[in-house]
Amino acid sequence: MKVRVHVSLKPGVLDPQGRAIQHSLEGLGFAGVHDVRAGRLFELDVDNGVSDEALDDMCRKLLANMVIENYRIEKVAA
Amino acid sequence: MKVRVHVSLKPGVLDPQGRAIQHSLEGLGFAGVHDVRAGRLFELDVDNGVSDEALDDMCRKLLANMVIENYRIEKVAA
Repeated sequence: MKVRVHVSLKPGVLDPQGRAIQHSLEGLGFAGVHDVRAGRLFELDVDNGVSDEALDDMCRKLLANMVIENYRIEKVAA
Repeated sequence: MKVRVHVSLKPGVLDPQGRAIQHSLEGLGFAGVHDVRAGRLFELDVDNGVSDEALDDMCRKLLANMVIENYRIEKVAA
């Protein structure tokens, strides 16, 4: 089973990386970019037997920093 | 308009970060994780007038390293 985990900063948390990217896009001549937020994406290949609770646990314990980040689990058709 | 850009390593490109995460998950007691690939996720807030070509250009010029990475653009309903 393929699983995608999207990790993004919670609203209100400062994102210097995203800000730098936004400025770089402006510098490259791209107009109309109001905001950029940077996050992480993990693609996991797991056994079909792995439960939703286990996936949740992986995110909370390792993949995301729950203090400043949210995560979203997306199962991809194999 | 909200746009998500998913950047992931091309197949065959070594991913030490993903490997380290996989080993850490094993170390934490999670079984059945065969592979982990680490990527990046960008959430852009852009003008509705920004064209698909401009978005493509942003990815090729700044957000993704086309030598080793693929990108996918996903438009999110505002």
